[in-house]
Amino acid sequence: MLDFTLENISAEELQRLRAVYEPLAQSVRELIDATIRTEVDANAVAAAKAEIDSATARLRHKRLDGTFGVRYLNSGERMAWGNVVIGIRNPIAPPLVVQHDASGTSWCDFHLGAAYEGPPGHVHGGVAALVLDHLLGEAASDGVNPRLTGTISFRYVRATRLGDLHAEAVTTRTDGVKTYATGHLADDEGVTVEAEGVFIQPRWARDRSD
Amino acid sequence: MLDFTLENISAEELQRLRAVYEPLAQSVRELIDATIRTEVDANAVAAAKAEIDSATARLRHKRLDGTFGVRYLNSGERMAWGNVVIGIRNPIAPPLVVQHDASGTSWCDFHLGAAYEGPPGHVHGGVAALVLDHLLGEAASDGVNPRLTGTISFRYVRATRLGDLHAEAVTTRTDGVKTYATGHLADDEGVTVEAEGVFIQPRWARDRSD
Repeated sequence: MLDFTLENISAEELQRLRAVYEPLAQSVRELIDATIRTEVDANAVAAAKAEIDSATARLRHKRLDGTFGVRYLNSGERMAWGNVVIGIRNPIAPPLVVQHDASGTSWCDFHLGAAYEGPPGHVHGGVAALVLDHLLGEAASDGVNPRLTGTISFRYVRATRLGDLHAEAVTTRTDGVKTYATGHLADDEGVTVEAEGVFIQPRWARDRSD
Repeated sequence: MLDFTLENISAEELQRLRAVYEPLAQSVRELIDATIRTEVDANAVAAAKAEIDSATARLRHKRLDGTFGVRYLNSGERMAWGNVVIGIRNPIAPPLVVQHDASGTSWCDFHLGAAYEGPPGHVHGGVAALVLDHLLGEAASDGVNPRLTGTISFRYVRATRLGDLHAEAVTTRTDGVKTYATGHLADDEGVTVEAEGVFIQPRWARDRSD
């Protein structure tokens, strides 16, 4: 069962928590990049590793039993800070900051570096799928009640260069619990991957809106 | 242009490099999990962050100008240590260790924790796509010359629990530069995501095998 307890966190407290934990995740993102690209010798690696292990021990002194999950706040906000694509506390997440414009398009501009590599110098095809799956899902959702992927397909037009990227998605129609969405990923020379999918409102989210 | 210089690294040197850098990436994986799940206070976070930033500075003292890329060794081995799915030097990679059995099936057993979360307690649908895209691509490749994704589709049977997972893929046929593959992801209760895709030998890899 999923836990949908609403948490009573004030806007000020949310801001304070964000100011504590967001810079930590950003530091870890820099460390991930450094870990992949470093050429320092074994002694320097050992010294870095000792500091990393010490930081991990400090952070584990008090921690959640499980995952971060998704917390719903009394304010109506959805706090998905652990999410692998948008989570500001998840160092794996770029993180995407999804925008929604008046025409119904969901989009984001973001940067992918060495940590997201597949073919040399290029974004892993599966990372393009990860980003687009999330973005089409956000387009298909209303911001609070999620719709989860039913089916999704990707067409790779050409390889996507690592660097500054843009992705966007729109819903094309909704039929009961199913919402259809399309979208694409682009680098600075244009569209590289096209996606289309069907997103489904999960049973627990239907129950929740009763 | 992609660089396919063969590197002359002995088996002993490869082993030595692995022993230096693999444990570093593993430490960063532990740190990623701790960063998402920590509940320590602002002072403890600041102390951890200082250690992380110090480690990053040490590692950046000497580093590659660009990404890790894929290095081809004289021994015939492909060294994709920076790859986001299988890279032993990439802390984002679980990393997958892909096995190939005599029947032509490519498979892997692996664990996904808090860092790969989408819906609470469950694997992000896009992470399932990332893993399967890679695995079907490996099944469609011969181990050295890669085939890249042309098109791929996913059907989500049900949500995938975070934890110990299994994925497998087979090629169904090859027609010129196109190879067709199918596969699935499973948790301890069975198949959760099905995939099928067409993988294409890129022009540069065709040139290379001349």
